[in-house]
Amino acid sequence: MKYCSDCGAEVQWRVPEGDNRLRSVCPSCHTIHYQNPKIVTGCIPEWDDKILLCRRAIEPRYGLWTLPAGFMENGETLQQGAARETLEEANAEVGVQQLFALFNLPHINQVYMIFRARLLQPSFGASAESLEVRLFSAAQVPWGRLAFPVIKETLALYYRDAEDGGFRMHSGDIVRVSEQPRSYRIELHA
Amino acid sequence: MKYCSDCGAEVQWRVPEGDNRLRSVCPSCHTIHYQNPKIVTGCIPEWDDKILLCRRAIEPRYGLWTLPAGFMENGETLQQGAARETLEEANAEVGVQQLFALFNLPHINQVYMIFRARLLQPSFGASAESLEVRLFSAAQVPWGRLAFPVIKETLALYYRDAEDGGFRMHSGDIVRVSEQPRSYRIELHA
Repeated sequence: MKYCSDCGAEVQWRVPEGDNRLRSVCPSCHTIHYQNPKIVTGCIPEWDDKILLCRRAIEPRYGLWTLPAGFMENGETLQQGAARETLEEANAEVGVQQLFALFNLPHINQVYMIFRARLLQPSFGASAESLEVRLFSAAQVPWGRLAFPVIKETLALYYRDAEDGGFRMHSGDIVRVSEQPRSYRIELHA
Repeated sequence: MKYCSDCGAEVQWRVPEGDNRLRSVCPSCHTIHYQNPKIVTGCIPEWDDKILLCRRAIEPRYGLWTLPAGFMENGETLQQGAARETLEEANAEVGVQQLFALFNLPHINQVYMIFRARLLQPSFGASAESLEVRLFSAAQVPWGRLAFPVIKETLALYYRDAEDGGFRMHSGDIVRVSEQPRSYRIELHA
């Protein structure tokens, strides 16, 4: 942020009075511009013993597989956002159920919240955001061609719970530890 | 938002190409300024069979009681944010545990995430943000002087679970249905 979005003056990068963090502060209208993490909301759409994955038609990770998920919008709930993203990316309608995975990605200021969900009917298809949309059995999941570490970890937990005979909520941190080559540390909370 | 925070030009309020929502779009540098919900992260700090509440020293709801909670900051995890807010508001150190309550407040574009937590020692006190900080037993909770509906609902669920002998994660929506007099609809998810 270089300019105040309220009055157009150049902002300063300083700690406001009574605060302890650097913020963009407007010297003209005195607005403090806070910046906070964004929520990515999504789901694991289930049909019988299969789950729905989308092959990305957009960067980053063009051509790789992922769960339907995206930035939560103002005015909606997490569950409405997960259903909207599934409709937009997979042309599929879901009933969103319990929260399954909650991951902090502090290096990019994101929180991922992935719910379990039921496909309302076995109807789905490609979209502007997905080259291809398919149902996968456990044996068919393309583990080597998944788009993001958070998706791989979520699906690994999902199939571990499925084998154990019961789903529970999981929480953890995914932190980038190196840029080149890209590597991540994954810490699950107790 | 009236001015582009990147280049200072006046923004337009329109639907960008390939999108389906109104956004602030800069006609000069073409930046799309997305606005998304904010996360309020907090906890229920426990010591023996009591919980810690703070009496607000700031508006809104000056003088009323609440759980330590506040906006999640960039670069931190949800759990770190809940611990930081508890230190700032109650001068108390906690070990943050499982997620207990997840509430959508779509009318103000917020998601509340309240964790259970253990006080590391029975040490706490007032702060710039809290007039008073105290441990309350179940019988002492000031139900008529709680600051927000989301806090009242979270504590009601907490004590119901405690009576039932086990805590589980709860999720729901709190939607304002009338401004004058202020009233809310609370819907818990299955």
